[in-house]
Amino acid sequence: MTAFSFDIAATDGAARTGALRTTRGDIRTPAFMPVGTAGTVKALYMDQVREAGADIILGNTYHLMLRPGAERVKKLGGLHAFSRWSGPMLTDSGGFQVWSLAGLRKMTEEGVQFASHIDGSRHMLSPERSIEIQADLLGADISMQLDECTPFPCEKEAARASMELSLRWGKRSKEAFGERETQNLFGIVQGSVYPDLRRESAERLIETGFDGYAVGGLAVGEGFEMMCSVLESVVPHLPADRPRYLMGVGKPIDLVEAVARGIDMFDCVMPTRSGRHGQAWSDYGPVNLKAARFAEDAAPLDASLDCPASRDYSRAYIHHLVRAGEYLAAMLLSWHNIAYYQSLMARMRAAIADGRFEDFRREFNARWDSGAFE
Amino acid sequence: MTAFSFDIAATDGAARTGALRTTRGDIRTPAFMPVGTAGTVKALYMDQVREAGADIILGNTYHLMLRPGAERVKKLGGLHAFSRWSGPMLTDSGGFQVWSLAGLRKMTEEGVQFASHIDGSRHMLSPERSIEIQADLLGADISMQLDECTPFPCEKEAARASMELSLRWGKRSKEAFGERETQNLFGIVQGSVYPDLRRESAERLIETGFDGYAVGGLAVGEGFEMMCSVLESVVPHLPADRPRYLMGVGKPIDLVEAVARGIDMFDCVMPTRSGRHGQAWSDYGPVNLKAARFAEDAAPLDASLDCPASRDYSRAYIHHLVRAGEYLAAMLLSWHNIAYYQSLMARMRAAIADGRFEDFRREFNARWDSGAFE
Repeated sequence: MTAFSFDIAATDGAARTGALRTTRGDIRTPAFMPVGTAGTVKALYMDQVREAGADIILGNTYHLMLRPGAERVKKLGGLHAFSRWSGPMLTDSGGFQVWSLAGLRKMTEEGVQFASHIDGSRHMLSPERSIEIQADLLGADISMQLDECTPFPCEKEAARASMELSLRWGKRSKEAFGERETQNLFGIVQGSVYPDLRRESAERLIETGFDGYAVGGLAVGEGFEMMCSVLESVVPHLPADRPRYLMGVGKPIDLVEAVARGIDMFDCVMPTRSGRHGQAWSDYGPVNLKAARFAEDAAPLDASLDCPASRDYSRAYIHHLVRAGEYLAAMLLSWHNIAYYQSLMARMRAAIADGRFEDFRREFNARWDSGAFE
Repeated sequence: MTAFSFDIAATDGAARTGALRTTRGDIRTPAFMPVGTAGTVKALYMDQVREAGADIILGNTYHLMLRPGAERVKKLGGLHAFSRWSGPMLTDSGGFQVWSLAGLRKMTEEGVQFASHIDGSRHMLSPERSIEIQADLLGADISMQLDECTPFPCEKEAARASMELSLRWGKRSKEAFGERETQNLFGIVQGSVYPDLRRESAERLIETGFDGYAVGGLAVGEGFEMMCSVLESVVPHLPADRPRYLMGVGKPIDLVEAVARGIDMFDCVMPTRSGRHGQAWSDYGPVNLKAARFAEDAAPLDASLDCPASRDYSRAYIHHLVRAGEYLAAMLLSWHNIAYYQSLMARMRAAIADGRFEDFRREFNARWDSGAFE
């Protein structure tokens, strides 16, 4: 038995739309998950995230296990209560962040030993500990298996060895997770850019059996074309009736092209990180509000969005706030960006439901390529 | 004719409560004005400031004249439209900030020459230019005369010379301001800690005639006792039917004691600045949320306040946010602090209206002295 049902309401080519039913509410797919690294989606109130249309957010095991500590979060009622997000929550395994600590961590068959970037304290992240943190202590609705993020570029034999390790960790994650009534576990496909490895990774994960399947090891420098090509080599081998999650991606154009290739879920720090750096996202790409052209532009960022940050503040005001380094600059731009991303997902869901996704995709690509934000 | 009426509904000792009637709405007094330095009350949305109970905010001429520039604000519809604050707004004259630029400014009879801290560009702030910026370009509901903030400590002859300059600048400010239908101009009493100078300053300002009177040159290091003593030497010489504004003050205890001495209006960066540094204000003084004692404290900051930041988030969560350096820490603590300050003003207004201000004051002092935040 899988803990949640995934109802696919419509498909259009490889794209599909539907809903994942969780006990904390439905996740409309394709879904974009804002990243709440340390128990907060940076510079936003949870109400704003919810009202912008997000059904689910992502929490980071690595950050939370170090501060405030997973046991402490549990004592305070779990991550939902602690951070005041009552909807579904997915946690990553911590593997990617730990993997990024090159020089400060040691990989073994057992797991990853590493030193905290906060206080230097030593920690061990194994598949079993990761599941304990995610499912038992933080209380995630969707936990991710611990995996090794294969570097890019990577020789094939190294990519195979890394994939095999991730598969073994996937099995151990599944065993540690066991059977749960309302919580879910996703496996992660690795295999770098090698189609036969990706296929084998997918097939062997399916043998182990997960509630959903993620595509890992992308957004690590391989580029847009390669990402699309890897998706084309993986998605056909994933079960049609289970959600597919592309980890850590990405720009709006990436989301559109990944949905076109059958992806259902995304997460990325881009909307909030860009927001803290003076950028607003649009169908035309990123817009740098610091640019002098906005100094006396009385228009809002995007009057078509039902978000106060997009609709009610002049670009001139936001330009001023960015230049002055004001908190409100990050607050408004992060809010707009999350609302924009959610609106993009909503437009994709509607286009798929109406059988006009290819038209939407073509028009979106034309806007994106034009870069003509006005 | 004065542009606004000041209705005093009740007095209790020297304390009084009432309302300043402006075309942009009533200002309930005693009033605390949150500071919106650069067109934003830092880390807050204007809606939050309004809903916390603020009737009026303060804008800084110095910051706004340099960035985005007063002429640009005018072109964008004035400071109210630019910053999305529709209620009354008071602007300072810019004098205090320019005065603080020791070494970078030159005082003459004409005004103050100074270099921008942003780009080094040279500017002249005269009484006439200050009024032009405040009243004509920013569109303040209450403008302040340009004055010289007398340093502390200061020999009496220097204090007299400085006071005389401020009086001349006050006259020029009044002439430049002229008669206006809906806008108001306040004079500023100087004279350092010398009662006879303070009295003379007040009397000569009244001869010139202003819509309200501010007490300047305090909160510059003179200390609590001296501040109280200066207020006692000034307030009796100010017209009872005009608002009295104590500039740049202060801590909650300062507000209570100044209200007890007949002050009607305050501004201070303290609630927002403290909020950005991990501090919450309370009747018991400042509370440092970074302290380890809050790491597992599930209680809210202050459940009695009708403010989500005070009521709905655990201290443990805010402690975590402060430690992690998250935007939301500053957002929640600034919000709480503004709500706390407004609630303090509301409690004082109610106590005065009910003729029990002395009881309120005594109980407040007892709480403050105990420091027993729990």
